[in-house]
This record gives sequence, structure tokens and C-alpha cells, in this order.
Amino acid sequence: MIYLDHAATTPIDEEVARAMRPYLGYDFGNPSSIHTIGVRARNAIEESRVQIASFLKAAPEEIIFTSGGTEADNMAIKGIAFANRHKGNHIITTKIEHDAVLNSCRFMENIGFKVTYLDVNSDGMVNPQDVRNAMTNKTILVSVMHANNEIGTIELIKDISEICKEKDVYFHTDAVQTFGHIPIDTANINLLSASAHKINGPKGIGFLFIQQGTHISPLIHGGNHEFTFRSGTENVAGIVGFAKAVELREQRMYTESYSPLRDKLIKETSRIPGTIVNGHLTKRLPNNASFCFSWVEGEALIRKFNQQGIAVSTGSACSSKETKPSHVLMAIGRKPHEAHGSLRISLGQGNTSEEIDRLIEILPNTVEELRKLSQLGRQIKCL
Amino acid sequence: MIYLDHAATTPIDEEVARAMRPYLGYDFGNPSSIHTIGVRARNAIEESRVQIASFLKAAPEEIIFTSGGTEADNMAIKGIAFANRHKGNHIITTKIEHDAVLNSCRFMENIGFKVTYLDVNSDGMVNPQDVRNAMTNKTILVSVMHANNEIGTIELIKDISEICKEKDVYFHTDAVQTFGHIPIDTANINLLSASAHKINGPKGIGFLFIQQGTHISPLIHGGNHEFTFRSGTENVAGIVGFAKAVELREQRMYTESYSPLRDKLIKETSRIPGTIVNGHLTKRLPNNASFCFSWVEGEALIRKFNQQGIAVSTGSACSSKETKPSHVLMAIGRKPHEAHGSLRISLGQGNTSEEIDRLIEILPNTVEELRKLSQLGRQIKCL
Repeated sequence: MIYLDHAATTPIDEEVARAMRPYLGYDFGNPSSIHTIGVRARNAIEESRVQIASFLKAAPEEIIFTSGGTEADNMAIKGIAFANRHKGNHIITTKIEHDAVLNSCRFMENIGFKVTYLDVNSDGMVNPQDVRNAMTNKTILVSVMHANNEIGTIELIKDISEICKEKDVYFHTDAVQTFGHIPIDTANINLLSASAHKINGPKGIGFLFIQQGTHISPLIHGGNHEFTFRSGTENVAGIVGFAKAVELREQRMYTESYSPLRDKLIKETSRIPGTIVNGHLTKRLPNNASFCFSWVEGEALIRKFNQQGIAVSTGSACSSKETKPSHVLMAIGRKPHEAHGSLRISLGQGNTSEEIDRLIEILPNTVEELRKLSQLGRQIKCL
Repeated sequence: MIYLDHAATTPIDEEVARAMRPYLGYDFGNPSSIHTIGVRARNAIEESRVQIASFLKAAPEEIIFTSGGTEADNMAIKGIAFANRHKGNHIITTKIEHDAVLNSCRFMENIGFKVTYLDVNSDGMVNPQDVRNAMTNKTILVSVMHANNEIGTIELIKDISEICKEKDVYFHTDAVQTFGHIPIDTANINLLSASAHKINGPKGIGFLFIQQGTHISPLIHGGNHEFTFRSGTENVAGIVGFAKAVELREQRMYTESYSPLRDKLIKETSRIPGTIVNGHLTKRLPNNASFCFSWVEGEALIRKFNQQGIAVSTGSACSSKETKPSHVLMAIGRKPHEAHGSLRISLGQGNTSEEIDRLIEILPNTVEELRKLSQLGRQIKCL
């Protein structure tokens, strides 16, 4: 199988699995226990925290482990909202955020908060001036993703975070698609979400970076773990695996380069008639290529590729099977008959140029074949 | 090391670790992906769900995977409160619940809910009539744990749940200490929390049983995973490990018996002067023994045992290191100088009668030694 769906999830690196093994075996202690078995688990967590914090040039106490990126996003949005509700009740985000952010915002709207969902341009870029213009004296939080999971566009979070700092409003960024892939400067970032399984680590573990001094409520209350920010017995093996994955990315982030393969893929695919490239052409994730093929059913496309041994995705494969067109593609102006025919190819560790060539080879015929079927369908409907 | 701290966490069974391995290796797919790699992960989750549901005699759709027992407790309390806030704003719980329940309740109080914290008797038992008497026409939820994690008392949840059913109030039970240990009848239970790492499964995975028809909000919003109840890419390896642990418990729950060892331990330890046995003598977890030794420092006791190769705990080792006396021990009437000297011994898979004999052998001297030190300390203070 040729795996080109790394934005959905990534294979666990063998070194990561090996690092986790003791904590799924003899080192099974509860990190809160004060006997030796507990202390060994505690040490493993704290060493992992230091590793991850140092990668992000953060303090260890600023890394709060969660069960993944979705929980981290929920904690950022709801935690800031609940803790700062006496200051204001207004949140600013964008129309192309991950559902973890959007649906957290909708929940807060249901219980009385106001949310502004900013438009993006046809490349999927948020205009920093729109953030500034949307601010009121009730604004407590701005949440803009670092890079979009479907179309790959990298947002101007430096500019946006500077505006937030100037206006004394908390800034959160969902960096699930960028952490470990491209450098992140946390200088003006108050909150940042990341996930292990997008960087060849295990599923079920992520973190929320919380800048020191940030006023935030826990999402999950209990025994006051994680410096009181997130309760629950820690997923020791997951945390250790996450740290190992980060260590490996630290070595690889600056040496590997997917952008030449990505650019070749975009160039060749653009030649297919009725193809639209989604996202910004240069300000985009090095490993993301996203297309819409008009009058093609995206799910059928994925199944056709699957039959030919290639794993790719349509819309956002991170969320459960949706039948409505992607909110991201609609936000950048795709029409439903285009948005339904979306294809996301996301590269990752181990992908070769031969694999991309194979995809390029079969793509035109696969698209044409499905489009014919779809045209036939439309003709029958018209009869 | 003699491990007698199974209420804090348990060693992962080798079979559990083996079952997880493929999902930390070649079966790494995102269960929401529709290609073969994703479908394999999806199938693993759904088979696990069926396994766990069948153990609980529940429908598979009633099992919602979470990151652990703490998240499940938070989801039950907050999810019911938010979803039913137009019906009422009153929650009933007890003074001896786990911090995951208590601190979730306190959070809801902070945002306008009313919570009644019921007293318990000196055995740690909640009187079902107290639940009935506390109910108002605003009561939407009762949360009473199945068995207490510190003192082992098993609550009368059958009686309490019947009252709730009669009054049309949701009933939640934290079954983290009982699931897989003693039988549970979910007939009148609307919500039940459980955790894998208390039954020789991995950390970072649990579930909330949600009876069909229960009106509840998600705690973690996003891509609508877990039948829309809990978003976030599923921890596939954790879920598979949990199901394997349940399968093993299914075979062992009715064959293994810790109560003779527990009873021997309680009988022998009671002979030490100044010892109080905590919890109900018969309505208690088969694997739990809990004591208070007056004028002994619990933490010093744990360290002394640790030096002698025995892992036990004081207070609740599930929560982060606390210095104040346990809220459970205070609720059953212990004085601070007694509560500080608490010892919890919790048995589990693999423990032998020789290990218990070893503990019984060294316990009296260890207690006496620490008590002398403590008396010396008090005398010096009086000078």
C-alpha cells in the first residue's frame, strides 16, 4: 500500500514503539504514587515534558498533556472562555478551523458567548486586519489555526498574534498539522494545540501549550494532575512515545523535504481538465496537495485509489464520515459540485518519488472514468 | 517488589500488551479514513466495543470511549448538567466521591448550578433515603460511586438508582474501582464510568456507558466521533488493549478471590494498638484493606515499606500528591491525627498469600517505629 494520507494519521515510528514498550510492561506505575514504581513513571513523564518543551523553546510547566489535539482545542477555547467570562464573552475564529475549534465555539455560543467566524480569501488566508476589525472590548480570545488540515494554507499567525498582544486578547493556534513539521515561534502565542499521531507518534496523546500567566480553567477536573490544569492518571506510554516522536522530528524536520514532490504533484495534476488546486501555492504545508475535480465523487475517487493500493483522502478524513461538502472548501468559494470531488494527498516519512509518480500515472484516467460515470448519471437525471 | 497498590494502577497483562502491538505498528490507520488502512482500525475499535458492551450486557452504542475514568466522570456530570439545564440546576452527590466527580461538581457550582454533597455514615455508606430527601423538582442528576477507591465500601447503588428512576432523575455511578472486579447490573443506571488501567489494561483509555435515550452534551466537541458523543481520533491501541483486559477479567472475575487474603490482613493488622479499620467490613471491595494508625505519618509509612520492597499507598494515590488529609477519611469521622496515618493495601492479579504474610510480618514494627518518632516530635514541640 502506498500511504499518502499523513495528514489523517501517520505510521508509528519503530523507535517510538520501542520507547513506549517498558511503560506497557514492567514500568507500569501510577506517576502519582510515591513508591519506586510510581516515581519511575513520574520521571519518565517529566523527562518527556522537558524534551517536548525544549523543542518548542517553552518551559516544561507550559506543556500540559491531553488525550490529543481535539481535547487541547476544546481546553483552549472553553478554558479561556470560562476563566475570563467576567472580562468578556466574545471569541474570534475563522470559518476554516478544525471542527474541534468550531464545535467548541458553537457550544460556547449555546451557553451565551458570542463568536465571530471570519471569512478567508480564495487561498484560504485569514486577513490579520479582519481580526483587528472584529475585536470589541468584550473579545477575550482569538483562535486561528497555524495551517489548514485540508488545503494546507499556512496562516499569518505572527501578524495575528501581534495584534492580539497589542489588544491584550489571548491568542490560540491549532498547530496539529504544523507541530514537528515546520518551525513555530511561540513568542506571542498564549495557547497552542498539538498531537502526537501526526508526527509518527501514538494516538491518544497531545498537548496544550499554555504560556505562563495565562488565566484558564481546566476542561477535565479531578485530582489536579498536570499542574492542576488537566486531571486524570497520565497516559505514561503515550507521553513517552510523543517525546520520542518529537526527538526524531527534531533531527528530521530540517533535513527532509517534501515540497519538491508536492510541487511536482500539483504541477502534473493541474493538467487534468476540470481541476482546481486548493490552498495557497507557496504559503502551504510542505507535505500537502489538495485538489477539486468538478463532477467527480470524492469518496468514489478514494475507493478507486484504494483498489489500486493507494491511500489518500477526501475532505477531512480526521472527522467521522461526513456526506456534506467540506466547510473549508465552501469557505474558499468552491461550489458543491467541485467540493464533493476533493482529493487530499499528504506526504510523510518514507514516501518516495516513485510513489508520487505512480499516483500521477493513474490519476488522470481515474478522474476521467469517474467523471464519465457522473456525467452519465446527470444525463439519466435529465431524461 | 511486592506490589499491593492495585487500586492506584495495575500491571499491564502481557496478553493485553500483545493485543495492542499491531496498532502501535503496521495497523496504524485513522479509523475515520475510508481506505483499507482506516477500515482495519475502525473494525478493531468496533470489535472492542462489542466485547466490552457484551461484558456489561449493554448495547455497543452505549459504550463511549474516553481518555480514562476522570474524563468519563467529567463528561457524565457536565454533560448531563449542560444538556438538561432547562429542566433543572440541581445535582446530588456524596462527600466521598473521587475528585473527578467532586471537582466537576464544584465547577458546575461556579457557573450557577446547585450541588448537594451527602454525608455518609462511619462505614462510608450513603443512605438511599438521604438521596430521596435531598431531591427537589430541580434535581437532574445523582452521582454516587459504586465503591470507594480509598476505603473500599460498596454503595447501595441498586436502591439509589431505583429511587432515581422513580423520580425520573439521571443516575451516574463512578465504577472505576468495580468494573471488571465485581458484577454490575446496569438495569437502572443511566451513566457509568470505567477505566482500563485498573484491570490490567493500559492507561489513557476508559469509557462512559450512556444508556440509550440519555440526554447528554459532549465534553469534547469536534469531528463527531463516538456516535457524536466524544470527538477526537480514537486511541485504537488503547481501545483494543482495554477490550483484551475485559476479556481476561471475564474469565477471571469469578474464579479469583482476594477476600480471604484481605480478611486475614484486616484481622492481623487490627491487633496493632491504635489501629482503625476503614470502610464497611463486609460490603467492601474484595481487594481493598484500609487502615488508620493514629500519630503515624502515612507518607513516612509508604517510604518505609518501599525501602523494604513493598508498594502500598496512603490516602488516594490516584490524585496528585496531597498534603491535606483525605476528604474520604474526614467524611467517615477520622480525626486529622488519624487520617494522616492512613494505609491502603489493594490486592490484584498475581498477589500471593506469602506476600501478604510478609506485609503482616513487618507492619507492627514499622508502625511502632514511626509512632515513636512522632511521639518524640510531639514531646520536643511541648518543651
